[in-house]
Amino acid sequence: MRATLMYGAGDVRVETVPNPTIQEPTDAVVRIVAGCICGSDLWPYASRPESAEGARMGHEFVGVVEEIGSDVTGVAVGDFVIAPFVASDGTCDFCREGLQTSCRHGAHWGGRNDGGQGEFARVPQASGTLVVVPPGFDEKLIPSLLSLSDVMCTGYHAAKKAGIKPGQSVTVIGDGAVGLSAVLSARLMGASRIILMGRHEARTDLGREFGATDVVAERGAEGIAKVRELTNGDGTHAVLEAVGLKPAIEMAIGVVRDGGVISRVGAPQFSDVPLGFPEFLRNITLTGGVAPARAYIEELLPLVLDGSIDPGKVFDRTIGLDDVPAGYQAMAGREALKVLVRP
Amino acid sequence: MRATLMYGAGDVRVETVPNPTIQEPTDAVVRIVAGCICGSDLWPYASRPESAEGARMGHEFVGVVEEIGSDVTGVAVGDFVIAPFVASDGTCDFCREGLQTSCRHGAHWGGRNDGGQGEFARVPQASGTLVVVPPGFDEKLIPSLLSLSDVMCTGYHAAKKAGIKPGQSVTVIGDGAVGLSAVLSARLMGASRIILMGRHEARTDLGREFGATDVVAERGAEGIAKVRELTNGDGTHAVLEAVGLKPAIEMAIGVVRDGGVISRVGAPQFSDVPLGFPEFLRNITLTGGVAPARAYIEELLPLVLDGSIDPGKVFDRTIGLDDVPAGYQAMAGREALKVLVRP
Repeated sequence: MRATLMYGAGDVRVETVPNPTIQEPTDAVVRIVAGCICGSDLWPYASRPESAEGARMGHEFVGVVEEIGSDVTGVAVGDFVIAPFVASDGTCDFCREGLQTSCRHGAHWGGRNDGGQGEFARVPQASGTLVVVPPGFDEKLIPSLLSLSDVMCTGYHAAKKAGIKPGQSVTVIGDGAVGLSAVLSARLMGASRIILMGRHEARTDLGREFGATDVVAERGAEGIAKVRELTNGDGTHAVLEAVGLKPAIEMAIGVVRDGGVISRVGAPQFSDVPLGFPEFLRNITLTGGVAPARAYIEELLPLVLDGSIDPGKVFDRTIGLDDVPAGYQAMAGREALKVLVRP
Repeated sequence: MRATLMYGAGDVRVETVPNPTIQEPTDAVVRIVAGCICGSDLWPYASRPESAEGARMGHEFVGVVEEIGSDVTGVAVGDFVIAPFVASDGTCDFCREGLQTSCRHGAHWGGRNDGGQGEFARVPQASGTLVVVPPGFDEKLIPSLLSLSDVMCTGYHAAKKAGIKPGQSVTVIGDGAVGLSAVLSARLMGASRIILMGRHEARTDLGREFGATDVVAERGAEGIAKVRELTNGDGTHAVLEAVGLKPAIEMAIGVVRDGGVISRVGAPQFSDVPLGFPEFLRNITLTGGVAPARAYIEELLPLVLDGSIDPGKVFDRTIGLDDVPAGYQAMAGREALKVLVRP
């Protein structure tokens, strides 16, 4: 089959690799109908050291089950399935608590495993990992179904962990696909004021469509001042941080109300969070982390199927597998917000 | 009247100062029946620069109302009252939300204001700040009533913000008065396993009396390994951090279970918390901060009055006002856990 490999920064290739097969009785093999490129793929695309052995890429996909191992239950050949971005057994204590990213038998896509930017993938722990979509849905929903693999659930994780209550005010930092999904999630949870911090107009326009009531293009101290101006000097009850850079978390601390919550889902490109003294005096909570997408798919799937939400709008370009290298370039150059791949 | 002033590190003096008077119609004047020295007083005692003007000391006291301003309601002359360690109006949005430490008209004891280590204190925002103790209580309860000014409520804040559920496991870092109060609070909230990290046997013995099921004397990597050993390698659902030094917060990160909560109430003597990458992958929540003691006094007072809890046991020495300098010395030298002052 054909699949995407990364050999170093800026060096993405589509190559022929062995077709996946069932290796464990808990495995399934899925034919990928749609995959995509993630904002987090841009970190290695910017900085990965060159290596002779390429890493398989992609961790988001939907597809059709081709084959299942003898222990797989709840998933049948021919099912259309959503694969969250981490595999999980669905039975351990962490999975039962909804923290599938810490599953005791979890696995990740890519690297030496199959990735989502290819034709097929072996899915470990298929019974726990895959979510079956009831048949008969409109093909047009595929982008939104795919968004449940990662970005929509990641935005939702930010909002859930922030514990947003109806009527509260929320700042979302970042107008990427996750930030926009966080806006949509904050709206779902009843936030009355949603301030989106971002400066790419096409993206912030989609943010307004998703529920943002205000857009702040300024950054740093200016951005903080602007959000405070919009909130009587107090900042917002919740801040959903969807960037992962130090200036973003600093901005989050600047715009959160005393007693409020910073929920971060942007993978941090730094090691320390400036939340010692004097921020201690403000009783700020820092929460979030890598999103257990699996925990939210069953909750969000009905909203996608009945058209209540359309998170697939974050995809603004669709390409074939051979164009994946160009897709990385387009996302890195901010020409595309999020690129969908139809193998 | 006589009151305590600090002129620099190690330089505590008891001097004659003007008696407080009503300055605002919302003020009260309280005759202090019992005050105390706080672990947090030891930070300036260790490092405060010398100055010609001394700072008034103490932020915990109980006493009898001597005089009230014309706007004070709910508090009458002769009432026995508990003063939480921050004054608050009780009516602003932050106070109504239970975050009295962020009160829009709040005030702090000490510095140029009266402190709790003296004979009298002017209490700003008396209606919101003071909690009246119903008359007829046993004098022996005074230490426990005094503990509601700060340490017991601070330990309780840690436990409340951690959201401890019955049956969960908790690590408490620090065997000072706040750490021991956190142990008692974790027990009140139904924790089934309470691991106290501390190495002063008299204190950890009191910790066991308060509800600790295990004591770990080791620190750093060894301490982390020990707690993990006690919890099947996972760490505990909640960690209550009552020290405020960087190694303590690092230990907290080491002993918290994935998806767990670090609730810190030790005033941080550092600016950065190492919760960037890779801790992001573990979905750890950091919460807590300076405790809004006022929010918890009414909840804990009945438990003190009916003898369900006896948090006053953290006081292991009682002195008069003239002995306050020696009291600081005893606490700094760890001869005393917490010193009660009867002016």
